[in-house]
Amino acid sequence: MAKFKPLGDRVLVQPEPAEEKTSSGIIIPDTAKEKPQQGTVVAVGAGKVENGNKIEMSVSNGDKVLYGKYAGTEITLEGEEYLIMRESDILGVVA
Amino acid sequence: MAKFKPLGDRVLVQPEPAEEKTSSGIIIPDTAKEKPQQGTVVAVGAGKVENGNKIEMSVSNGDKVLYGKYAGTEITLEGEEYLIMRESDILGVVA
Amino acid sequence: MAKFKPLGDRVLVQPEPAEEKTSSGIIIPDTAKEKPQQGTVVAVGAGKVENGNKIEMSVSNGDKVLYGKYAGTEITLEGEEYLIMRESDILGVVA
Amino acid sequence: MAKFKPLGDRVLVQPEPAEEKTSSGIIIPDTAKEKPQQGTVVAVGAGKVENGNKIEMSVSNGDKVLYGKYAGTEITLEGEEYLIMRESDILGVVA
Amino acid sequence: MAKFKPLGDRVLVQPEPAEEKTSSGIIIPDTAKEKPQQGTVVAVGAGKVENGNKIEMSVSNGDKVLYGKYAGTEITLEGEEYLIMRESDILGVVA
Amino acid sequence: MAKFKPLGDRVLVQPEPAEEKTSSGIIIPDTAKEKPQQGTVVAVGAGKVENGNKIEMSVSNGDKVLYGKYAGTEITLEGEEYLIMRESDILGVVA
Amino acid sequence: MAKFKPLGDRVLVQPEPAEEKTSSGIIIPDTAKEKPQQGTVVAVGAGKVENGNKIEMSVSNGDKVLYGKYAGTEITLEGEEYLIMRESDILGVVA
Repeated sequence: MAKFKPLGDRVLVQPEPAEEKTSSGIIIPDTAKEKPQQGTVVAVGAGKVENGNKIEMSVSNGDKVLYGKYAGTEITLEGEEYLIMRESDILGVVA
Repeated sequence: MAKFKPLGDRVLVQPEPAEEKTSSGIIIPDTAKEKPQQGTVVAVGAGKVENGNKIEMSVSNGDKVLYGKYAGTEITLEGEEYLIMRESDILGVVA
Repeated sequence: MAKFKPLGDRVLVQPEPAEEKTSSGIIIPDTAKEKPQQGTVVAVGAGKVENGNKIEMSVSNGDKVLYGKYAGTEITLEGEEYLIMRESDILGVVA
Repeated sequence: MAKFKPLGDRVLVQPEPAEEKTSSGIIIPDTAKEKPQQGTVVAVGAGKVENGNKIEMSVSNGDKVLYGKYAGTEITLEGEEYLIMRESDILGVVA
Repeated sequence: MAKFKPLGDRVLVQPEPAEEKTSSGIIIPDTAKEKPQQGTVVAVGAGKVENGNKIEMSVSNGDKVLYGKYAGTEITLEGEEYLIMRESDILGVVA
Repeated sequence: MAKFKPLGDRVLVQPEPAEEKTSSGIIIPDTAKEKPQQGTVVAVGAGKVENGNKIEMSVSNGDKVLYGKYAGTEITLEGEEYLIMRESDILGVVA
Repeated sequence: MAKFKPLGDRVLVQPEPAEEKTSSGIIIPDTAKEKPQQGTVVAVGAGKVENGNKIEMSVSNGDKVLYGKYAGTEITLEGEEYLIMRESDILGVVA
């Protein structure tokens, strides 16, 4: 995703595909799928400026991150769906 | 659009025309069209001042930008429609 | 309008008269007229003070400005109607 | 009004009496009178302190000021009605 | 009231008793009495600290003060009713 | 209560038991009892940090304090009920 | 839980299991169980940055903490349930 540069302290995240079956093998119809809460960082902004102090970003490309259910704005780039969110919407990094 | 100078950290954006057909060729009546979320920066303000620190603008004329569905105020200049929004309403730049 | 001095970062704006006919020549009854969104700056305040830093005003008398539909407070001075608004309510200057 | 000292950035204003007749001579019953929006400053506070910086007051006794319709708190001192408001509620000074 | 020390920028105020008769001599039943808006300062806090700057209190014991109708919290100390409010709730001092 | 350490500018308060009889001797059923507004400080936090400045706590263990009716969160420690509240919720200290 | 790194001033907490019986031995059905308000810190973020000042975290791994009923976001890591919350949601540490 080198083609999109998030602004400020924003991060572009590729969400993990939602499970299409429950553990017992039942196929989940589209509207019942839970929105994924885990994804991979694919682009990060330059960081925000606060009173003349640049705040460095804490995540980088390739990080697997967790985020709240309603975090971010859905955008479509070349037919694929991404989420763009502020770094503060990211709860943590899965090592 | 050299004729309009946005104030502070505002940016003047020319939205991309909405698609008039769906991918299967059906003509979309006017009220069903999705508001475009991509546009081109045509004028930028001088940047905002925060506690005596001038914050430089991160976008410049000609940048293709993405923004949230409800970002900005619609204004009409010489018969054409533009959006004027704060830089913080811009999600990122499409390279 | 040298007789009125706005306080702080406020600006006195003389709105442009609303169009009394549509482009097809129909006379618009009073209540259907759109509130004008363009006007001329006729007086500016001294600017606001933030943490001891004086913020200079970005507009000056005679500037043609655009502002949001609901910006400012309507005041009547010597029988004429003006809007007094904060500079931050001004979207930009028409060159 | 030397007998009342407003606190902080507050200003004591004596509102102008509301018009008791319309321009065509009809006497306005009490409840239909518009609240006056113009008055005279009769006492000013010492100014507010922001992060250790004293902000000087921009109005002084005798200034004729305009203020929004719902600005200030009505108080009665020795049988007369005044408004006490923050300086930021004052829109400007009529010269 | 040396027995109660308000915290921060709080002030302990003894409200003036409400009038029990109207000017025409009618006894006012308890629920129709207006809440008093004038009182006497009987204890003051040490002042608040803002970014390491101590803000001195502007009122002192014995000051007759005016305050908004809904200012403060009612507390009962040794059977008497007081109001405890922030200094910013005090409109001014009656000299 | 040495076993619980409040975080930041929080204070652990042991509320005074509510009166179980009115002054005329009527036993108050449980739901009609007023929530106590007075209590004793039993543990204090280290104080909050504001822009790099540590703000010292103004209350200490053993202080009898007054607080608003809805201040704090009820917690149960070893079967006893306490309130944990921010220092700013404390109105003052009873000497 | 070395595999998850909270961002900023966030803390990962493993809640204590809710009691499955009341003190009188009645088994509590799942929906009537109270949400636990006590847990153990299993991972802490690097701390937040405020105006260029790094704020150190006040809790560390293994601390038993109390938190408000609705604090934090529930996340599932390897089949176990955790809460991720801001340090400011933690009321205090049980020694």
